[in-house]
Amino acid sequence: MEKIVALCKRRGFIFPSSEIYGGVGSTYDYGHYGVLLKNNVKAAWWRAMVGERDDIVALDSAIIQHPKTWEASGHLAGFTDPLVDCRKCGHRFRADHLADLACPEKPSKHPGEAENCSLTESRDFNLMFETTAGPVKDSGATVYLRPETAQGIFVNFKNVLQFARKKPPFGIAQVGKSFRNEITPGNFVFRTREFEQMEMEFFVPPADAGQWFAHWIAERERWYLELGIRADHLRLRPHEPDELSHYSSATSDIEYLFPASSSPEPGRWSELEGIANRGDFDLTAHSQHSGEKLEYFDQPTGERYVPHVIEPAAGADRATLAFMVDAYDEEQLEGGPRTVLRLHPALAPIKVAVLPLLRKDGHPELAREVYAGLRRRMQTEYDDGGSIGKRYRRHDEIGTPWCVTIDHASLSDGTVTVRERDSLDQRRVAIDALAPELERRLTEPWRTPKPAGSAR
Amino acid sequence: MEKIVALCKRRGFIFPSSEIYGGVGSTYDYGHYGVLLKNNVKAAWWRAMVGERDDIVALDSAIIQHPKTWEASGHLAGFTDPLVDCRKCGHRFRADHLADLACPEKPSKHPGEAENCSLTESRDFNLMFETTAGPVKDSGATVYLRPETAQGIFVNFKNVLQFARKKPPFGIAQVGKSFRNEITPGNFVFRTREFEQMEMEFFVPPADAGQWFAHWIAERERWYLELGIRADHLRLRPHEPDELSHYSSATSDIEYLFPASSSPEPGRWSELEGIANRGDFDLTAHSQHSGEKLEYFDQPTGERYVPHVIEPAAGADRATLAFMVDAYDEEQLEGGPRTVLRLHPALAPIKVAVLPLLRKDGHPELAREVYAGLRRRMQTEYDDGGSIGKRYRRHDEIGTPWCVTIDHASLSDGTVTVRERDSLDQRRVAIDALAPELERRLTEPWRTPKPAGSAR
Repeated sequence: MEKIVALCKRRGFIFPSSEIYGGVGSTYDYGHYGVLLKNNVKAAWWRAMVGERDDIVALDSAIIQHPKTWEASGHLAGFTDPLVDCRKCGHRFRADHLADLACPEKPSKHPGEAENCSLTESRDFNLMFETTAGPVKDSGATVYLRPETAQGIFVNFKNVLQFARKKPPFGIAQVGKSFRNEITPGNFVFRTREFEQMEMEFFVPPADAGQWFAHWIAERERWYLELGIRADHLRLRPHEPDELSHYSSATSDIEYLFPASSSPEPGRWSELEGIANRGDFDLTAHSQHSGEKLEYFDQPTGERYVPHVIEPAAGADRATLAFMVDAYDEEQLEGGPRTVLRLHPALAPIKVAVLPLLRKDGHPELAREVYAGLRRRMQTEYDDGGSIGKRYRRHDEIGTPWCVTIDHASLSDGTVTVRERDSLDQRRVAIDALAPELERRLTEPWRTPKPAGSAR
Repeated sequence: MEKIVALCKRRGFIFPSSEIYGGVGSTYDYGHYGVLLKNNVKAAWWRAMVGERDDIVALDSAIIQHPKTWEASGHLAGFTDPLVDCRKCGHRFRADHLADLACPEKPSKHPGEAENCSLTESRDFNLMFETTAGPVKDSGATVYLRPETAQGIFVNFKNVLQFARKKPPFGIAQVGKSFRNEITPGNFVFRTREFEQMEMEFFVPPADAGQWFAHWIAERERWYLELGIRADHLRLRPHEPDELSHYSSATSDIEYLFPASSSPEPGRWSELEGIANRGDFDLTAHSQHSGEKLEYFDQPTGERYVPHVIEPAAGADRATLAFMVDAYDEEQLEGGPRTVLRLHPALAPIKVAVLPLLRKDGHPELAREVYAGLRRRMQTEYDDGGSIGKRYRRHDEIGTPWCVTIDHASLSDGTVTVRERDSLDQRRVAIDALAPELERRLTEPWRTPKPAGSAR
């Protein structure tokens, strides 16, 4: 993990936010390759959810919604962490995590154990960020930054029924930022106060909820595997009855096995996504609080019911991190060691790098032409800095699946060398055939070149 | 404009947020077609800025940054509106807009003119949303929702220089939400408190600033025109010296002529995008506040300078609205009137609709096959509801450029009818050739079918 964090910084994938001002705790900015990678993760989710299904529609609801939303959802009353303060040093701690924490003044002790400690009683602290929206009188209109995108979907259920002409089973998908005022964020981008969710709420006839719950668990697991996560680094963990949320009758987490030494949640598998059977909890709650009937009336059968909801809720930042970690590899080649990100081509930030062998003799001119032809079709980078070997290493390290080299022969016979990241295979391809050839390779099924891998 | 708002609601492009709770003033949610359209607008911007240039890199910085950012940028001290309150009715008004406003108690009068009015002195009201981030002591750590994405770029200037190996002239592009606590938002999605920006900061040697300012004005104007905005609905308006922001030595707005009757800003052209020459204001300010040197050192020449910045800053919601308004058309056909959105195919939410002529006789099965083949390549909709004419109208109204109809002949000769939205041209295409044919049409230059149009 330290290696991933170092690579992220070195190549500008992800770095601490507002660094020139000393940073903001656990807040990160995505640099060039990081944005492209995360955008590809979101696009792959979007394709699987919206592009390739006709039973799911898209939504983009506001971050600042009507405050009653959070009354109905239970967040206002119950979305809290129990906290204690130290009267002496002023630090604040999760009351339920004291045994895992170190006293900031005396790190060998837990908070409350050191001589100078004096902890207050535990108080509930709401995790929603609160702000005031105008036009306001002095009392102000208190609103909240959404702690999840899901509720924006539920409050729009009726609109979608009406305008999208959908009937259960159907889903509503949304990608967007959410905010939680975590007291102890951390572990790189695994737990941050500002994060991006990919959530889909699937509305079904109550009797079919169990079957759709199973469907979505299988679908979502398949998504990670098809995008290259090793099967032995992924597992499904059904929640125990006593850890279920109040709204859920069943939840299964898709968990990823981060490297043992420094897992985001050390020593255990970490949640990438939760698939929950939320029953009719949400629609019923919003119906009660709004006075609107949130139900489905099936004209042909005359049946009227409140649909049940199956929710696959994934984190875009966590998924991005897991794809990077799982793709990270170091190996010895004849020319020396290399670091390589074996990313699925669909996720790779750069699909192809165009490299003139020399910075003279007509190589740059032809390389520019090849570059111009490719960049309209896929994310392409022109790279003429340093030796060809150094450039290959640089692109291995960011996961570029193909490097195209323009050399002396290219000028006479109109072919270029296409070098493949994983197999190191090099073959000559006619410039005219290059774009279609790479597009074909981009869309064909991808078999992970990663070793089967022992458990970490 | 009323027609656009009605269409947006009827077809679920955009509707008021949290409607079941009575809405939140001037906040909107995007429904299925609206999300797809806005995503396409953002993707077109991204392609023009990041995909097709090698002198611009991407960034995605946090919404909640270090509060010192806003001290340095001047937002904390100066990003304010002058406001007055009425002591009698408690309403709050922009002090500089009193003459345009109506007294809520006596709408025939301006605030302060009615008998019962008693306005306070004008006070400055900061437009940034303020919130508190934990872990916090009781005093709290006050942070702000960013009022623009630009500052996230400036504070990362040094990171990008270092990791992206760029040297001026180069740019950093970012798309993301910003928040301004506007006292008088309004005019549909034209001015909202939560909105999405597409900003790019281009760093240049000081001597070249004028030339790059001109370059970006021309580029950005071309972008709107190529995506179909009518030339006579677009204009460039250089700011007068007295309306320039404190950080800018020159700014030109790209303005759109909304329909006269109900323009977002009635009676005048409205800003879609501003292109500003910000000089060295931002880097110098952040350098002073952070103590970090934010400059460029050119090794070959030994030259050291603070780059000047040219900023094209566009609004994704405004652009989406302008593309819709400009595409909106009503016309009389032989079969009756139709409403049609003449959107550029790259922007159209749905590229192609697949329509079985009948819901029997093998049409649905073949149509499903055609649909399955297309939806992996482009956003495709399967539509079997109602008569074929009704379905054509439905897709005209949301701007779908092509409808593919599967009929009896399709079963025997393997061809389908491709009907074009604008020309109404229908021709038979072999199913095997359909995807490449539509992909070809999608990428070829598009000539707007809109009438040259008189000034509104």
